[in-house]
Amino acid sequence: MEDQDPEEQAHYESVLLSFREYEAFVMREIFRRKKHLQSLPVDMQRRLPPTSTLRNLHHFVNAAHHNQLFLERIVQAQLESGPAVNLPQVTPKTPLQSPMRHLSKIKSTLHQFVRDWSEDGKKEREMCYSPILKELKRVLPVKPTNQNAQRVLVPGAGLGRLALEIASRGYAAQGNEFSYQMLFASNFILNWASQAGEFEIHPWIHNPSNAMSITDLLHPVVIPDVAPAELLGLDKGNQPDFSMCAGEFLEAYANDSECWDCIVTCFFIDAAPNVMEYIAAFERLLKPGGYWINLGPLLYHWQNGSGDDDERYEQSVELSYEEIKHVMGTYNFKILKESQRECVYTNNAKSMMRTVYNCAFFTAVKDATPSA
Amino acid sequence: MEDQDPEEQAHYESVLLSFREYEAFVMREIFRRKKHLQSLPVDMQRRLPPTSTLRNLHHFVNAAHHNQLFLERIVQAQLESGPAVNLPQVTPKTPLQSPMRHLSKIKSTLHQFVRDWSEDGKKEREMCYSPILKELKRVLPVKPTNQNAQRVLVPGAGLGRLALEIASRGYAAQGNEFSYQMLFASNFILNWASQAGEFEIHPWIHNPSNAMSITDLLHPVVIPDVAPAELLGLDKGNQPDFSMCAGEFLEAYANDSECWDCIVTCFFIDAAPNVMEYIAAFERLLKPGGYWINLGPLLYHWQNGSGDDDERYEQSVELSYEEIKHVMGTYNFKILKESQRECVYTNNAKSMMRTVYNCAFFTAVKDATPSA
Repeated sequence: MEDQDPEEQAHYESVLLSFREYEAFVMREIFRRKKHLQSLPVDMQRRLPPTSTLRNLHHFVNAAHHNQLFLERIVQAQLESGPAVNLPQVTPKTPLQSPMRHLSKIKSTLHQFVRDWSEDGKKEREMCYSPILKELKRVLPVKPTNQNAQRVLVPGAGLGRLALEIASRGYAAQGNEFSYQMLFASNFILNWASQAGEFEIHPWIHNPSNAMSITDLLHPVVIPDVAPAELLGLDKGNQPDFSMCAGEFLEAYANDSECWDCIVTCFFIDAAPNVMEYIAAFERLLKPGGYWINLGPLLYHWQNGSGDDDERYEQSVELSYEEIKHVMGTYNFKILKESQRECVYTNNAKSMMRTVYNCAFFTAVKDATPSA
Repeated sequence: MEDQDPEEQAHYESVLLSFREYEAFVMREIFRRKKHLQSLPVDMQRRLPPTSTLRNLHHFVNAAHHNQLFLERIVQAQLESGPAVNLPQVTPKTPLQSPMRHLSKIKSTLHQFVRDWSEDGKKEREMCYSPILKELKRVLPVKPTNQNAQRVLVPGAGLGRLALEIASRGYAAQGNEFSYQMLFASNFILNWASQAGEFEIHPWIHNPSNAMSITDLLHPVVIPDVAPAELLGLDKGNQPDFSMCAGEFLEAYANDSECWDCIVTCFFIDAAPNVMEYIAAFERLLKPGGYWINLGPLLYHWQNGSGDDDERYEQSVELSYEEIKHVMGTYNFKILKESQRECVYTNNAKSMMRTVYNCAFFTAVKDATPSA
């Protein structure tokens, strides 16, 4: 961090502060619910069951506080392992300094913990990660002779579970992640969680819609489902090769070429302002004959929004899957295998609403003998 | 309309104008896509296939224009059947006067046509409407002696298909709808569409994300799948009892009581700022022993948003399904039958992303002998 520019430093501090302001933020929403319920005519209030939100608001207040204690652990871990920053203390009553987009990403970070590090997220991981791991094993089998020798890059690694699963299987795996929210949270879970079931979070208290019951909204999720060290087999003398690289994908790997045996992208390529730049980078970074395994939809992140917020909104191109495949061909990629798979993303299994992605799942090889 | 207040009249005109401004609105988005694609380095532009958006933008322009011609038919029908309004002419280049929320609802209106009035929407209707129609038949069978005698109310009737299906089965059916977008569109399809397959719309051009191919985005949808008159059997001498009632549900039926045999709500109750007011109204409106059939999620429409826009945001209460059932009990409703059903809402079958609702589906009876 020492060589970071002041703007980057300010962003770092601002994201860290938003972790600390979570409770104050969520309390405002809980207070809104309370105010609206208490504005109901008394006759109507009386018709609500003893289990109602109105009579159980303290459970939401407690859950938000419980989440804050967990998030504060992440902040502390970051303060210890990262650069020195002057972070103000916060109470639920101090005015919020964080922009709404940061605070809303803290909520998503809690959902990401469910996806990557809970028993509740197991089904989701089996939909998304299992086919990728199976395919990786098929194209690059691990043998005693190549243990930790085959290098696999996972851009958009989020909370690190997929990259760690890859490393645990005998690959040299590196996760790359841009978002500070994800980096702080993955730093914590990867380096500070020592045993399964160590923490409990309440990730579903934020949205009162589509709930079957109040109990569902308060449903606690235990994390991690497995200690990262245990997953890597460190306790059994394993010596895995795993690393995380912080930074924007194109910038972080700008000077590398032909150094990866496989690039795995899971719900990642649509995060590009221009997906073609990612494809070009994958081609450059892969060794000749290297593989690109992809699974995900094409929900382009920079499609909507104002250029005032971020210049990437002004660059967004939204290619169809057909166009992407054609472009891949021009970058010496040959698709070996292709299918569609239904996957979910940070799904709340108990909610009455869910988003299902009909993902493109393919394995492509970087042609070693490019045509003219 | 003559006795409408000036504010209501202004809203009416403003929604009608937004129908006319659709093309100008969509052209701005198509122009954005063009601008971003043309900003790509020339090397990258060359890598795009002949089928790419860049080389096929004129198809999107044509599709938007085609949609506008269809929407203008709706405007014309409304101008002929509704009150006189002074609607300005619009070209794609004149500055937009309509607020974004109106323009975005015009896009949804095109999606609603797919749901209610196309062959493409058949599967969706079978998920949502078929279980309701089957249940209605079970609790209130139609016999020669009660033809058109059993009165069924459908609040939130949208484009009228469900209410019309009910009328076509021998019930006296009334749809109620608040939104001018839906009222203009349903007026048109119910009263001006004379044969199946009369119109073609391009409802999926608005969102370039999650497309398998450009062809999917341009996919035309033919409407209606059946002429409303034919569905009602008017050509076979049928004399159905069908009507539409315009207005906010609670206001429109404020002075009625115990006059309906059944109320059917499909994706409706979560449109209430306070769902308890709807439940109270259903109880009042149903005859003793009358039925309430409901299918839908609990995606509360007024949960998020600013009170500056609409005071209903300041009233929103978001009850869980458990709470709703308890409240129903206090209003003399007894649930006879209950299940959960997966349904979609204006789903684009070709998209890589879809929202699935795990709907509450129940039949309740208004207890004829309320407990003290």
